[in-house]
Amino acid sequence: MRGAVLHGPGDVRVEERERPTLLAPTDAIIKVTAACVCGSDMWPYRGIESTPGPMPMGHEYVGVVEEIGDDVKNVKIGDFVVGSFWASDNTCPICQAGYQSRCVHAEYVGMNGAQAEYLRVSLADGTLVATPGQPDEDLIPSLLAASDVLGTGWFGAVAAEAGPGKTVGVVGDGAVGLSAVLAAKQLGAERIIAMSRHDSRQRLARDFGATDVVTERGDEGVAKIKELTDGLGAPSVVEAVGTQESMLQAIQSTRAGGHVGFVGVTHDVSLPGELLFFSAVHLHGGPAPVRQYLPELIELIWNRTIDPGKVFDLTLPLEEAAEGFAAMDERRAIKALLRP
Amino acid sequence: MRGAVLHGPGDVRVEERERPTLLAPTDAIIKVTAACVCGSDMWPYRGIESTPGPMPMGHEYVGVVEEIGDDVKNVKIGDFVVGSFWASDNTCPICQAGYQSRCVHAEYVGMNGAQAEYLRVSLADGTLVATPGQPDEDLIPSLLAASDVLGTGWFGAVAAEAGPGKTVGVVGDGAVGLSAVLAAKQLGAERIIAMSRHDSRQRLARDFGATDVVTERGDEGVAKIKELTDGLGAPSVVEAVGTQESMLQAIQSTRAGGHVGFVGVTHDVSLPGELLFFSAVHLHGGPAPVRQYLPELIELIWNRTIDPGKVFDLTLPLEEAAEGFAAMDERRAIKALLRP
Repeated sequence: MRGAVLHGPGDVRVEERERPTLLAPTDAIIKVTAACVCGSDMWPYRGIESTPGPMPMGHEYVGVVEEIGDDVKNVKIGDFVVGSFWASDNTCPICQAGYQSRCVHAEYVGMNGAQAEYLRVSLADGTLVATPGQPDEDLIPSLLAASDVLGTGWFGAVAAEAGPGKTVGVVGDGAVGLSAVLAAKQLGAERIIAMSRHDSRQRLARDFGATDVVTERGDEGVAKIKELTDGLGAPSVVEAVGTQESMLQAIQSTRAGGHVGFVGVTHDVSLPGELLFFSAVHLHGGPAPVRQYLPELIELIWNRTIDPGKVFDLTLPLEEAAEGFAAMDERRAIKALLRP
Repeated sequence: MRGAVLHGPGDVRVEERERPTLLAPTDAIIKVTAACVCGSDMWPYRGIESTPGPMPMGHEYVGVVEEIGDDVKNVKIGDFVVGSFWASDNTCPICQAGYQSRCVHAEYVGMNGAQAEYLRVSLADGTLVATPGQPDEDLIPSLLAASDVLGTGWFGAVAAEAGPGKTVGVVGDGAVGLSAVLAAKQLGAERIIAMSRHDSRQRLARDFGATDVVTERGDEGVAKIKELTDGLGAPSVVEAVGTQESMLQAIQSTRAGGHVGFVGVTHDVSLPGELLFFSAVHLHGGPAPVRQYLPELIELIWNRTIDPGKVFDLTLPLEEAAEGFAAMDERRAIKALLRP
């Protein structure tokens, strides 16, 4: 089968890979309908995160179940499914508490490379959720978004305790940050302040529900958020970048007693204890437990209540994956969808 | 009047200080009935925290109102009062959200030195709470504990979401950690794991409600907590020390999705972003909003439901404050009470 492989910084190639087979009775093989390039894929692509050797890429996927192991009961051959990027049993105490991405049996689906024609998903019963039927073509981008960026932005908004009447700041205007704007809106936030300096992203943020846009960054961004919130800072802030600057910006933009939801995969971040202590914020984040939200997100998409697929502003055949990476690296695209 | 002053590391002297006067119409002057030495006083006493010059000491106090400014309505001359170590207006949005220690008009009462005969408390209406009457002598240590260590341990337990049926770990066996054990018990925790290697503190922890004691520290302490919690870590952990080791121990002892309440004043702490991200814990702490809890804590003490004053295992006349500091520094005493 064909699949995208990262051979080194900036070097993505679509090449022949071995077609996956069932390795455990709890596995499923899906024929990938759509996959995509993630902001987090940029870390190894840019060489900031080292890779031990050629690495199959992709951890976001929707597709049709092709084969199932003997123990799989919740999905059947032919089902259209959405899955999380972390495989989870969905039965352990951590899963039951809603943290499937930290399941005691968690496996990273991305290890198998979802930017390919076929994908093996372990712990299929606890990881995949079938849609009510075969989706209309125009729903596919949104269902794909649910498998990571929407679920991650949603978790960020939940962790930041976005809710009715709340003012929510969002640091980061990538697909996750924009999804967090959409999530905050759905969760009832009254005012949503998107931090973005890119026209196209500002427009999408407003389309998703942002009421204000702040273009300043760092200390100036913090000052602007305070200016908009009676000098106090926002009660809820989502961090969707993962750098030292963005984490500090998020914490310092939050009022004492407020909530920071951080979902940008952190890189070289070191948080000063005294800043955290005297900020008196709640800090919560990590790899999003997307599986927890999938049933609800699929329903919202199926009913056409939300259209998170708008984050994909570039669609390419899988064979052109390298261009998808380059476009995102150069910020010519917010997010690239790949069709095998 | 007489008052304790820190002149340099290890050098506490009780000397003549100017008797405080009302500086604002919202001030009150109280005649101090009892004050004490705090674990956080050890930082400047040990020279770990530098001091710009001679510094009046003490921020925990109970006493009788001696004078009030014209705008003070909630307490009257002759009232026996307990106050928080942060003065707060108790009306701003941050106070109303329960974070009085971060009030937009917050002032640190400790600047005025509570280890003295008299103390000026600013924002008296929002800071002081009167007891139902003049307390029996044996209630004084517990009421004094409410002004900081009990309120701080309580906040730690609340921040860690200690509650019915929960397992709560407590890192730190100082007065705050022990108070967090008491708080967790009151909040309904089923299992309380105190981390302590000192006999007398272990005994008090058990007396306050600890069901288990772990003597190991660092990675071994983490392993022990996991062993006691089905390999998952505790759902609630209170951190009551403030060092890098204790913060990491607390975070790593907590299960994914669990809550860390940190109330040890952090010193030279730097939290790695990736550890925080993949731990997926909730982290919340800071200077405890003691004022929020005072009415409830005073009631529990007044009704003799709790006896947090047991943390004082040394009582001295104010004149012997230096011995109180030395005893705590050498861990001969958990906490020293001073009577002017």
